[in-house]
Amino acid sequence: YTPYLGSCSSADASMWSFFTTVAGQDGEVDAEELQRCLTQSGITETYSPFSLETCRIMIAMLDKDYTGKMGFSEFKELWAAINAWKHNFLTVDQDRSGSVEHHELSQAIATMGYRLSPQTLNAIVKRYSKNGRIFFDDYVACCVKLRALTEFFRRRDHLQQGCVNFMYEDFLQGTMTI
Amino acid sequence: YTPYLGSCSSADASMWSFFTTVAGQDGEVDAEELQRCLTQSGITETYSPFSLETCRIMIAMLDKDYTGKMGFSEFKELWAAINAWKHNFLTVDQDRSGSVEHHELSQAIATMGYRLSPQTLNAIVKRYSKNGRIFFDDYVACCVKLRALTEFFRRRDHLQQGCVNFMYEDFLQGTMTI
Ligand SMILES: [Ca+2]
Ligand SMILES: [Ca+2]
Ligand SMILES: [Ca+2]
Repeated sequence: YTPYLGSCSSADASMWSFFTTVAGQDGEVDAEELQRCLTQSGITETYSPFSLETCRIMIAMLDKDYTGKMGFSEFKELWAAINAWKHNFLTVDQDRSGSVEHHELSQAIATMGYRLSPQTLNAIVKRYSKNGRIFFDDYVACCVKLRALTEFFRRRDHLQQGCVNFMYEDFLQGTMTI
Repeated sequence: YTPYLGSCSSADASMWSFFTTVAGQDGEVDAEELQRCLTQSGITETYSPFSLETCRIMIAMLDKDYTGKMGFSEFKELWAAINAWKHNFLTVDQDRSGSVEHHELSQAIATMGYRLSPQTLNAIVKRYSKNGRIFFDDYVACCVKLRALTEFFRRRDHLQQGCVNFMYEDFLQGTMTI
């Protein structure tokens, strides 16, 4: 039973009370609170619960001020994003195997507008799959990372030439925390 | 009881038999096999077992050909590295709290020869800590990532100016798989 999904009416008020419960005393949601609430909410349904790593990646994606925590607006944004990933995963898993395989990821990434070489795609599949199968948790981690790293790169690619001059410290701050 | 630690004599033969057991039929060790064997070997002792994510990061560190798996020589190298991290962790955890705190990480990173701004250090602590404490598993993930990303950067910093011009695809392949 997931009260905050699929319904837009009066969702904001109940979302707020949900958020305050999850956030606890400090009024912000950290990675462990997020993992607990995702597991309890049943949002992953038959999929296995999200790893702490995926929760951290999702928070890092929204966490512009590097606090490692989410306020209410980020939390809402994340909730919507996870639902979008769920629908996306069902679409991408064309043979209904319950996981995304190499050719399915290749298509999905192309559909999202990325152009990656076969070598890069192979490396990504190796990194996020278990015996060639990418499950929901790792699929989300992979897609969120791909998007966050691409955004990080593009923000510095002022001339949009696909080429960026990075200082070491800037490179490290972006890539260590995503 | 950890038969492969602390003894160098005849270690290679028993290491080989250990490796073949862990690797199974394909003769290579993937992230899940590594996680199982690290848990069973007791190498983390009182620390909680390694997450799959940390195992993947450690394999990525040694995995020059992006297969996502380790042969015998990489496995030996990794085993030595983990032991080194264990000793390092004990040294870094100066107040014996069982975890590495902000000021301890700051010192450790400086000792390893990295120069990071307070802002970057804060962001890293937020990313790898739980309530301000970095435990062994996350400490290893953090240090291995820091080293791998720095090496990735340095290999392209031909003039050693702390500044690298990245093509998008190269940037992505390095950062998505570390
Ligand atoms: Ca909180
Ligand atoms: Ca499939
Ligand atoms: Ca400590």
